[in-house]
Amino acid sequence: MLDTASAKQKLMAFAESIFNRGLTAGASANMSIKTDTGWVITPTNSCFGFLDADRLSVLDQQGNLISGDKPSKEFLLHKAFYDQRPDDTCVLHLHSTYATALSCLPCANTSDAVPSYTPYLTMRLGAIALVPYFAPGDVALADAVYEVAANHPGVIMANHGPIVSGKTVESCVFGMEELEESCKLAFKLKGHQANLLSKDNIADLKAKFANK
Amino acid sequence: MLDTASAKQKLMAFAESIFNRGLTAGASANMSIKTDTGWVITPTNSCFGFLDADRLSVLDQQGNLISGDKPSKEFLLHKAFYDQRPDDTCVLHLHSTYATALSCLPCANTSDAVPSYTPYLTMRLGAIALVPYFAPGDVALADAVYEVAANHPGVIMANHGPIVSGKTVESCVFGMEELEESCKLAFKLKGHQANLLSKDNIADLKAKFANK
Amino acid sequence: MLDTASAKQKLMAFAESIFNRGLTAGASANMSIKTDTGWVITPTNSCFGFLDADRLSVLDQQGNLISGDKPSKEFLLHKAFYDQRPDDTCVLHLHSTYATALSCLPCANTSDAVPSYTPYLTMRLGAIALVPYFAPGDVALADAVYEVAANHPGVIMANHGPIVSGKTVESCVFGMEELEESCKLAFKLKGHQANLLSKDNIADLKAKFANK
Amino acid sequence: MLDTASAKQKLMAFAESIFNRGLTAGASANMSIKTDTGWVITPTNSCFGFLDADRLSVLDQQGNLISGDKPSKEFLLHKAFYDQRPDDTCVLHLHSTYATALSCLPCANTSDAVPSYTPYLTMRLGAIALVPYFAPGDVALADAVYEVAANHPGVIMANHGPIVSGKTVESCVFGMEELEESCKLAFKLKGHQANLLSKDNIADLKAKFANK
Repeated sequence: MLDTASAKQKLMAFAESIFNRGLTAGASANMSIKTDTGWVITPTNSCFGFLDADRLSVLDQQGNLISGDKPSKEFLLHKAFYDQRPDDTCVLHLHSTYATALSCLPCANTSDAVPSYTPYLTMRLGAIALVPYFAPGDVALADAVYEVAANHPGVIMANHGPIVSGKTVESCVFGMEELEESCKLAFKLKGHQANLLSKDNIADLKAKFANK
Repeated sequence: MLDTASAKQKLMAFAESIFNRGLTAGASANMSIKTDTGWVITPTNSCFGFLDADRLSVLDQQGNLISGDKPSKEFLLHKAFYDQRPDDTCVLHLHSTYATALSCLPCANTSDAVPSYTPYLTMRLGAIALVPYFAPGDVALADAVYEVAANHPGVIMANHGPIVSGKTVESCVFGMEELEESCKLAFKLKGHQANLLSKDNIADLKAKFANK
Repeated sequence: MLDTASAKQKLMAFAESIFNRGLTAGASANMSIKTDTGWVITPTNSCFGFLDADRLSVLDQQGNLISGDKPSKEFLLHKAFYDQRPDDTCVLHLHSTYATALSCLPCANTSDAVPSYTPYLTMRLGAIALVPYFAPGDVALADAVYEVAANHPGVIMANHGPIVSGKTVESCVFGMEELEESCKLAFKLKGHQANLLSKDNIADLKAKFANK
Repeated sequence: MLDTASAKQKLMAFAESIFNRGLTAGASANMSIKTDTGWVITPTNSCFGFLDADRLSVLDQQGNLISGDKPSKEFLLHKAFYDQRPDDTCVLHLHSTYATALSCLPCANTSDAVPSYTPYLTMRLGAIALVPYFAPGDVALADAVYEVAANHPGVIMANHGPIVSGKTVESCVFGMEELEESCKLAFKLKGHQANLLSKDNIADLKAKFANK
């Protein structure tokens, strides 16, 4: 478990990288890391490109603000993952273009919402869940995420965007990046009769990489 | 209200970030900040990637040039917002790809020109107005913007690009980034039978976030 | 006219910016600046992201190499512009994605190859010429560019990419960026019944901005 | 042949550039350089944006780990190129968007999988081979790459991504970037009746640039 100072440093480095590579815009993203004394989370209405380590919200284990600015209103969504997945230590929410675009499409299977053209999303996050639209801040949205979080470290919220949980900061961020790439492929390949992985391919991947 | 030095610093930081992330190209953008003594604005034909703080145009409250290079010819458009929205302190104009592309499409409702696939544009800027095409520098364009600016902090100029006004530099920039993202979604989702937010969803958002 | 040291500095700054924003990839671009003693040009097979000022090719007014690495083989194309446009001091060639993509499409009017959805390409470069495909290094390609360069500071070479000439480094680079944006709009708007500027709009722009 | 320290420096510089320009995301890429004492390769599950020179895997000429973290599991794929192409000193594997997207499409000619809209891919890498899908880490995938590597420095692995080998680090990286650009053009031009280079054009390029 990271201490607060290390968590701040890691959050700053990944958030800046995510922002500069165009994975999120304006003040739409938020990220938290579980620490030995609670959490570090990005403040409400903050921008990943202009974070200030001294203003990151530091919370205790009950979620009370200890120092820094007021935390992101979406900490409720993060909490849904931490409650359901006690080994996880990082949650990241973006409005990345392609996962957000996919969140607006009709969905045939809300327990497996993203097509598998390559093995990597299966290997990193498994099947992605899709939860219905609720207005930002509505507790019903946190409830909907809570319902699926135990089985799905990667969730897409309809007409909103993706949220990913991970055991480490790295597995969380790399999982999110793979999710965005998979959604990008889904759009680029629409209408081109592209080859999906077969059910056997997916079963084989799950068998090989389940404990990873 | 910012002083000139702080306004220059903020303008430089946001302009460089906007440029490096590909939200505007060449010398097509301009940005102004209202200060305690007038305005700071990017010079005519300047490039957001290569600004020089000493050459930013400093104007007094009558719009006379006090120091720096000749101001952007599009200050007239900025002035339309400042005159109609006395609490606003920042105006940003870009030729960002997707808002500019959308500005060239036939428009069914010029008082609400951008489809709402997610809640964020409604929350940040409300409905976006579209004004007709006029040649760059034509005072009729500033007049057209003036007509809609009181009700619309976000405006798209046909065959030209977006312009956004905000109470703070941050709300202006983040509003613009949300506008570009919303236009990007509009293009990515064309022809895919995507789910728009319903009128009830939008009314609910306006009720919840109106005073924000 | 810039001296060699200033020209090197400017070339390095713009080339790096162009590369980092994804306007060219690998070793596909080249750029030259006319100086008081000849030219500075990027070396053959060099990459805009990893230029070394000491290795830039310095040429005298006869085109002989004075210092630095062997110059780009495409100096012949640059020379076509300098010979036809004695006031120009900068030429830039990229394989930017959208201008290159457009270079592969059937073309209805090789004297005006890029559609005008916004006024800015007309204002910066006027109508863009398209020349036929020839293999890289073929003198027939330089001849074809020479034929159109007097009337067209912006040229697209079929199945190859864009090349732009300008009176200053800035007008050359900003013209190129506008060309790429215009080609991007052309692709994004295909099939969407977008509104082009009218012939009257274009004539009006030419009248207003001809001497600019 | 580079020594270990120079190879590390070069790998770090190119990997960071590749990452920051969006050519690969998360921890999906790997890169190796042959040195006078073996190889330097990126560690397993490492991210091109956050490499640490001290943790790069240093291997001896038998492939044993000498220092640094555990090497990428995909060293087997790199080895297929080094075994077949004794003059090559660099191998790069990415999940770049467009080459990966193309890897999921039906393929008419697995010995020439990428259409030639411009001359540059032919000049840098020649025809690109496509090998069938196998699960990551399956030795059958390394075998399939080995089969084609003698004739093809550029290979696309179905439902996976591109891998490129080069005599120098630069020729490897620039070849990969050209491959990604060519695949991007293939997608942008789909359905637009774009002009491919003719067989004569390609034969002419091979004749002119074969020994390059």
